[in-house]
Amino acid sequence: MTYCVGVLVEQGLVLIADTRTNAGLDDISTYRKLTTLAVPGERVLVLASAGNLALSQSVLGLLAEGLRNDETGEPETLQTVPTLFQAALLIGRAIRQVRALEQAALEQANLRFDVTFLFGGQIAGGPMELYLVYSAGNFIRCGPDAPYLQIGEHKYGKPILDRAVRYNTDLYEALKISLISMDSTMRSNIGVGLPIDLAIARRDAFAFEVLHRIEPGEPYFHDLSERWSAALRAAHKSIPRPPYGQEPS
Amino acid sequence: MTYCVGVLVEQGLVLIADTRTNAGLDDISTYRKLTTLAVPGERVLVLASAGNLALSQSVLGLLAEGLRNDETGEPETLQTVPTLFQAALLIGRAIRQVRALEQAALEQANLRFDVTFLFGGQIAGGPMELYLVYSAGNFIRCGPDAPYLQIGEHKYGKPILDRAVRYNTDLYEALKISLISMDSTMRSNIGVGLPIDLAIARRDAFAFEVLHRIEPGEPYFHDLSERWSAALRAAHKSIPRPPYGQEPS
Repeated sequence: MTYCVGVLVEQGLVLIADTRTNAGLDDISTYRKLTTLAVPGERVLVLASAGNLALSQSVLGLLAEGLRNDETGEPETLQTVPTLFQAALLIGRAIRQVRALEQAALEQANLRFDVTFLFGGQIAGGPMELYLVYSAGNFIRCGPDAPYLQIGEHKYGKPILDRAVRYNTDLYEALKISLISMDSTMRSNIGVGLPIDLAIARRDAFAFEVLHRIEPGEPYFHDLSERWSAALRAAHKSIPRPPYGQEPS
Repeated sequence: MTYCVGVLVEQGLVLIADTRTNAGLDDISTYRKLTTLAVPGERVLVLASAGNLALSQSVLGLLAEGLRNDETGEPETLQTVPTLFQAALLIGRAIRQVRALEQAALEQANLRFDVTFLFGGQIAGGPMELYLVYSAGNFIRCGPDAPYLQIGEHKYGKPILDRAVRYNTDLYEALKISLISMDSTMRSNIGVGLPIDLAIARRDAFAFEVLHRIEPGEPYFHDLSERWSAALRAAHKSIPRPPYGQEPS
């Protein structure tokens, strides 16, 4: 299992990803799911993957080697694509190429072709954007009305995003809310776990402002989890008693 | 879609269920999913169902008509079973009887045999209990370590239950937390919606203390939702800024 969330606010982009993979409950490992690419002053790109690890690694492998551009005949990579939209198309093409190679054999083994990507960043001359690329290779781009996208085990961590993230939310507040969303997911699904990789890119900076891995036991994240639990307990206690039935004796 | 949650605390039992059913997004209706049965002073039972509405109605229909007890030859109903454990077995038998009748035809129509029940209460001489009966007719009983069970769209509303409900939680606090869990689910899944039916039974009272339907626009529930949103915003604001990257300028 996996949980990754990206938030695109006015000030910039936050992307966080857990690192737990499992081939059954008895085979759990740590793999980095966040991939970053920066050409300072020119482009900043970040990808996070969910689904079958063999598939996401194959897609990333293809992207690193480059896919042939049919017009120019040259191999195209995330280093060379001129726009984010072209980058999303390229990731979609890589997924479809892997599907053509793998799907039949996976189906024979009763496995689903399951791989999705969050992908965001900015290339000079264009806007900062955040995409979700599906396993069919098609994609959506998030907008200011719901300025976040999730992949993997997304349900446990969605309520806090729905209530707290707005397009004008401060960048580090967006990171904090993402970490709360991650913490809620980790509490309910042991297939999602520490360490957490995070990337922050400010709009028009064309460089990462933060690239960090939160390791188990890191005081800030531990404190955030404790404070959030305490705040939730205080929050529900502050709501009046339901007006049904007997008054408390 | 459906969301039902039952909480069994020291003081008693809370069971709440939404009422939305849908056969596709373009065919949404309101159906009661909560069924209650009380013989004052002797037994109090409550069921909530999720899954295919035709199946849950068939199971409830069988339970109302009674299933033949092979030892006595008499029809057995929830009015006559001597213990809650026997009641859970009876519900499981009803599910299996419906499965024997329906599964083949459902499979031909590419439909899954999908029906689950929450079931709780107390029969004189026995303890108060809460069960989850699966579509295979088997069941689990909740214990004090995790004193709640859910059916239907359970993920959005689970984090608050995990953090806030304990076995010694006050009965009406348990109701409040269940309503927050329901509200979180309704915000994220339009397949879950008002009205909400709720039942409360205090331990050893052998009668319902509350049977109530929360209709759209009811002030308490509207206020709970608003206060919860405001409290969550205040809660994440009270957590310190993540210590990564630049200090805020």
